[in-house]
Amino acid sequence: MEEVVSLCKKRGFVFGSSEIYNGFNGFYDYGPLGSELKRNIKERWWRDMVRARDDVCGVDSSIIASPRIWEASGHVGGFSDPMVDDKTTKKRYRADQLFYAELACDDGSSLGCVTCLEDAADEDRPRIPPPDAPDRPGDLTAPRDFNLMFQTSVGAAEDNSAAAYLRPETAQGIFVNFKNVASTARGFKLPYGIGQIGKAFRNEITPRNFIFRSREFEQMEIEYFLPPGDDAWRAAHARWIDDCRAWLVEACGLREELLGFEVHDKLAHYALACTDITFRFPFGEQELQGIAARGSFDLKQHTDASGKSLEYFDDGTKEKYLPQVIKPSIGVDRLFLAVVCSAFEEDEVNGEKRSVLKFHPAMAPVKVAILPLVKKDAGINDIAAALYGDLKKRYNCQLDAAGNIGRRYRRQDEIARPSALDDGAVTVRDRDTTDQVRLKIEDVVPYVTKLVEGY
Amino acid sequence: MEEVVSLCKKRGFVFGSSEIYNGFNGFYDYGPLGSELKRNIKERWWRDMVRARDDVCGVDSSIIASPRIWEASGHVGGFSDPMVDDKTTKKRYRADQLFYAELACDDGSSLGCVTCLEDAADEDRPRIPPPDAPDRPGDLTAPRDFNLMFQTSVGAAEDNSAAAYLRPETAQGIFVNFKNVASTARGFKLPYGIGQIGKAFRNEITPRNFIFRSREFEQMEIEYFLPPGDDAWRAAHARWIDDCRAWLVEACGLREELLGFEVHDKLAHYALACTDITFRFPFGEQELQGIAARGSFDLKQHTDASGKSLEYFDDGTKEKYLPQVIKPSIGVDRLFLAVVCSAFEEDEVNGEKRSVLKFHPAMAPVKVAILPLVKKDAGINDIAAALYGDLKKRYNCQLDAAGNIGRRYRRQDEIARPSALDDGAVTVRDRDTTDQVRLKIEDVVPYVTKLVEGY
Repeated sequence: MEEVVSLCKKRGFVFGSSEIYNGFNGFYDYGPLGSELKRNIKERWWRDMVRARDDVCGVDSSIIASPRIWEASGHVGGFSDPMVDDKTTKKRYRADQLFYAELACDDGSSLGCVTCLEDAADEDRPRIPPPDAPDRPGDLTAPRDFNLMFQTSVGAAEDNSAAAYLRPETAQGIFVNFKNVASTARGFKLPYGIGQIGKAFRNEITPRNFIFRSREFEQMEIEYFLPPGDDAWRAAHARWIDDCRAWLVEACGLREELLGFEVHDKLAHYALACTDITFRFPFGEQELQGIAARGSFDLKQHTDASGKSLEYFDDGTKEKYLPQVIKPSIGVDRLFLAVVCSAFEEDEVNGEKRSVLKFHPAMAPVKVAILPLVKKDAGINDIAAALYGDLKKRYNCQLDAAGNIGRRYRRQDEIARPSALDDGAVTVRDRDTTDQVRLKIEDVVPYVTKLVEGY
Repeated sequence: MEEVVSLCKKRGFVFGSSEIYNGFNGFYDYGPLGSELKRNIKERWWRDMVRARDDVCGVDSSIIASPRIWEASGHVGGFSDPMVDDKTTKKRYRADQLFYAELACDDGSSLGCVTCLEDAADEDRPRIPPPDAPDRPGDLTAPRDFNLMFQTSVGAAEDNSAAAYLRPETAQGIFVNFKNVASTARGFKLPYGIGQIGKAFRNEITPRNFIFRSREFEQMEIEYFLPPGDDAWRAAHARWIDDCRAWLVEACGLREELLGFEVHDKLAHYALACTDITFRFPFGEQELQGIAARGSFDLKQHTDASGKSLEYFDDGTKEKYLPQVIKPSIGVDRLFLAVVCSAFEEDEVNGEKRSVLKFHPAMAPVKVAILPLVKKDAGINDIAAALYGDLKKRYNCQLDAAGNIGRRYRRQDEIARPSALDDGAVTVRDRDTTDQVRLKIEDVVPYVTKLVEGY
């Protein structure tokens, strides 16, 4: 893991936030290559999951919204972690992470999604250890609930009515707009999903594992609405699990042997099922994407709290009902880390050790590096520049004319795929296999497009 | 303006936040078409201003960061509006907006950028009117500074050290990463810019004019770093003003006659120049994009406050210096509104009145509508579906097979451009001109790509 973090910093993928001010725990900045990779992930997800699907449209709701949303959703009352204070050092800990993580998950990882935890029976809650426990850090208080929502105050009024929250998940912005979308999206007819990409915030007591569990993160999520009935949600749930896993492999290039599943058996009272797609990170197998079947819980909560019906009129059956929902949700930053970890390799070419990020072409932050052979003839740099100009309109590319060709290859190995070596006509070298093919100049753009876009 | 707001809501561009909870002032949600248009704006900006330029790379920094950044930048001390209380009604107002807006701008609009205002001499500050002023709402307090940054608290600690802010602008996330980017971006060599797109937040006392001045908004911004010297910044400033204006016309399709310039003559003490590109909104001519020459003020502030030098070593001159900066900055939401206002028209076709959004193809949230002639032959729907599948991988498109063709045209008029009418071969109808051309099936994708992408 240290190697990944170090490569991310060295090559401009991810920096700690506010480094010149000695950092700010739980927040990260994406650098030149990182911001490209992050965009690639988001743009591909939007293309495949929203634009290319007939049964999904998008929204983009605000991060701050009415606090009544979070009262209705249960987050004001229940979105919390159990916190204990060390009475001597005044340090604070998550009770479950300190002592009882192994009770919840065999691999020592998290307790799973908070939604499941918060509704678990009391006896399943983590408790503080007896006073003589060997790893007890000091004299601890009893655990108290610490709400993970960041709070702020909106407007100039001084009273409490202005309290508001940074959303801890993007989903509620979809639920509260269900009627708005149903009445404006072309061809809205259940089953139909609403997708969104956006930032969310959780005031983690102890953020950890780099960008895996940070306090500010980005989610890509669909609420897929369905008519009532067990068969409907079971089929849709199974299909979304398959579709999501296939997308992670085919569009993001995640290595299949690193993926797994975890079927939750402890569920919130309203939940019907929850399956995680897991990824084997260097620090353990962890949730990458959750696909939850949530019934009509959220729409019902907002109907009750707002007094405004979110029922859907089914043109086919002529019935009115609250749809149930399947919720595939994935964190951009988590997926970013999985893409980097999956692509990371150290290998040898011609006896020389190199670290390589074997990105899927769709993910690669630099799609093509153009490396003209310097000494051959003068016109070659013009040809290279023209090809570069043509490719750059479409993709992030690099033109690298300086230094010997071997060194230029090494420079690209950690970041780019594939590389095009211009020597009059064009030799295209695949960064991963180091295989080369020769192409006519005019065939380069279609060749790269096919690799990146799949068409 | 009411027509634009109403169309935005009716067609699924923009909804007020939290509508089912009676709204939340100053926040907005983008619907199915709005989220597509917003993405189009951001993706095109990133392509043209970051990816396609050799002298710009991107970053994506966090919304919440060390509060020391905002102390150094001057926002903790000075990013405020003058606020007065009505002692009877307890209502709060912005003193300048209530009474003295006309002193600042002839058209009754805002006082210009807050950066300029906060450093203006005291006598230029708006003052409350005398007690007998006719429009005085009640007995008012003296104006006090109200800081516009949203504050929150990070971590579980209870003391004040955890106070943090939601960034009021994206720029500082670039400045504090200047060294990180300079050492990791390929080919970093001044002049060189760092671009970013991201959310920012300002707790406006009185948000107004729809999404023009909201409390949560998105910025697209470049910090373009330069060597010292007057000639260097003057030339770069002029070039960025030209480039930005050209991009607004050519890439976003803004109508030239709606654009203007405003050269600021009141500047903050450190600023060298500031020119706004203005847009004639229905509520008045307002700043759309600011292009400021800020000298090396920000880098110097962070160097002083952090104790870490942000100097740049110039390989050419072998000198070390703090670069100066040109800062072209535009709000996504403002530009969204300008794109909609610029495209909005009511016209007549065959004696029938229609409201049309004449979007530039790059901006149009629906690129193509495929309207197969229903009654002709059975195979036509298969052909239409195949073409739709092909186009949908690339762009947001619609397949509309129901209803008579006239009504289907009308439906697309407000949202799409161009429309393709499939009748065996393909007739492509331009939504704006209603002109038609006939194409072979295989020529449709290249034709649309050329329109949308320009290549």
